[in-house]
Amino acid sequence: MKNLIKLVDEHLDKYLGICYPEEIFKAMKYTLMLPGKRLRPVMCLETVRMLGSDINKAFPMACAIEMLHVQSLIHDDLPCMDNDDFRRGKPSNHKVFGEANAVLAGDALLTFAPQLIIEKSDNLTTETVLKLIHEYTKFAGAYGLIAGQVVDIESEGGKLAKTAEETLDFIHLNKTAVLFRLAIRTGAIIANAEDKTINELDEFATKFGLAFQIYDDIMDEISTFDELGKTIGKDKNSGKLTYVSLYGLEEAKKKFSCLIEDCCDIIKKYNSEIFVEILNKLRDRILGV
Amino acid sequence: MKNLIKLVDEHLDKYLGICYPEEIFKAMKYTLMLPGKRLRPVMCLETVRMLGSDINKAFPMACAIEMLHVQSLIHDDLPCMDNDDFRRGKPSNHKVFGEANAVLAGDALLTFAPQLIIEKSDNLTTETVLKLIHEYTKFAGAYGLIAGQVVDIESEGGKLAKTAEETLDFIHLNKTAVLFRLAIRTGAIIANAEDKTINELDEFATKFGLAFQIYDDIMDEISTFDELGKTIGKDKNSGKLTYVSLYGLEEAKKKFSCLIEDCCDIIKKYNSEIFVEILNKLRDRILGV
Repeated sequence: MKNLIKLVDEHLDKYLGICYPEEIFKAMKYTLMLPGKRLRPVMCLETVRMLGSDINKAFPMACAIEMLHVQSLIHDDLPCMDNDDFRRGKPSNHKVFGEANAVLAGDALLTFAPQLIIEKSDNLTTETVLKLIHEYTKFAGAYGLIAGQVVDIESEGGKLAKTAEETLDFIHLNKTAVLFRLAIRTGAIIANAEDKTINELDEFATKFGLAFQIYDDIMDEISTFDELGKTIGKDKNSGKLTYVSLYGLEEAKKKFSCLIEDCCDIIKKYNSEIFVEILNKLRDRILGV
Repeated sequence: MKNLIKLVDEHLDKYLGICYPEEIFKAMKYTLMLPGKRLRPVMCLETVRMLGSDINKAFPMACAIEMLHVQSLIHDDLPCMDNDDFRRGKPSNHKVFGEANAVLAGDALLTFAPQLIIEKSDNLTTETVLKLIHEYTKFAGAYGLIAGQVVDIESEGGKLAKTAEETLDFIHLNKTAVLFRLAIRTGAIIANAEDKTINELDEFATKFGLAFQIYDDIMDEISTFDELGKTIGKDKNSGKLTYVSLYGLEEAKKKFSCLIEDCCDIIKKYNSEIFVEILNKLRDRILGV
């Protein structure tokens, strides 16, 4: 796991050089290179490995997913969105580079990610590269990540088109689960997996994504700033719809536990120490060892 | 020309349906469907036609370029950027949908454009589609459009890394010319043109882009709000670096005239009434008939 994180960091740093105008590349790199768990790229690489293929084929895709993730964080932190001053323990992008550059750095990451997939995937066929880009565009846009963010913002304003339960699931199926689905699906595509396998792993990724969001909501409730590196208790204070605010802490833990069990059931068919390690870490943190 | 504009409008409307969450699709469509000259998609389609290929192959790409163009307008108009309240004679996107939705609508257009190219280009080979997406990502990001916008913002703050002349050219080679280059290059790629032709047309597009920017700067100086549909004299009032502010009106007209002549010289080898019509319209407007 640590080794994979290090490899992802090295590739991110290598892929994104600093050109003129330096300010924008520095802004892109600033949030991208903040130390993180690199969970999404690691899961993409691990999917490739556990399906018997070479992870070196997957670094451009894995790094593109991290860039998309970071893009969404930079834009989410903007004053007109969540207005968050901290990210991964450091001042957020717009606090360092200004709002205009933060908007543009996000835009630039959003198009650099597919550019990277095209330019660095030498050992994949044209068909595979196009499939990867297609997955990227479907999950990154108004049918995926952005749909989740929009409904999240609407729900904060008290505007719900569906029940609170449906709305909350819609938000996080899109805002959170989508990136894990993208990571695992593209990993499976790079490994030339059959549709049946892709669909099964997609189910894993979807459930993992929801579990991860519940984990995040619970941590927001019970952690400190130093532990999370971002503003704490904000969701609670703003009356935001979360799994904890809607179901209560105990019920949220139960939901989390069920989803993690389902994930364990699916992944045990595959031989992956890393996925087991990730699932165990999340479970231990929430449910105690 | 009118016929092509109508076809572009019809395809834009058809390609982008309204799904849940409606607010984001409405925001995307609002600025996209404001009546415009559709210069970039028309030039893409006309390049395909004059090189002897079928324009029906090019509608997804042509519309993707308009989406990218509109994305850049929506983000440029934001309060943290140019802070413009009007666009094409109507309230700008963030005035209607709020800043958060305007940021997200731009993001969504930026990824919907390549998704559209992939999903609707049935009659192009996988290799061609991937080439188109590659051109799109190169020109849309920090090596193209965004580089121009960043240096534009920096120059407004009085920060120039190069001479004023070099800075102004850099801004508009990237901010303006890049979209015309993208339109014409991808048109040529769809028509399977040879590299020599692509390079010659790329030179045309580059010069046309600069001429178009000088045209825009001159119009900002001499027009009214009703004529342009956007705030007028803003560049002048903010002390912004423009071809008119740097070279004076007469010298700017001369530069414009030279570039248009060069464009005419290149395009006369090809049989295109539409390119000649566009060049003549711009020239007549600035230099008088």
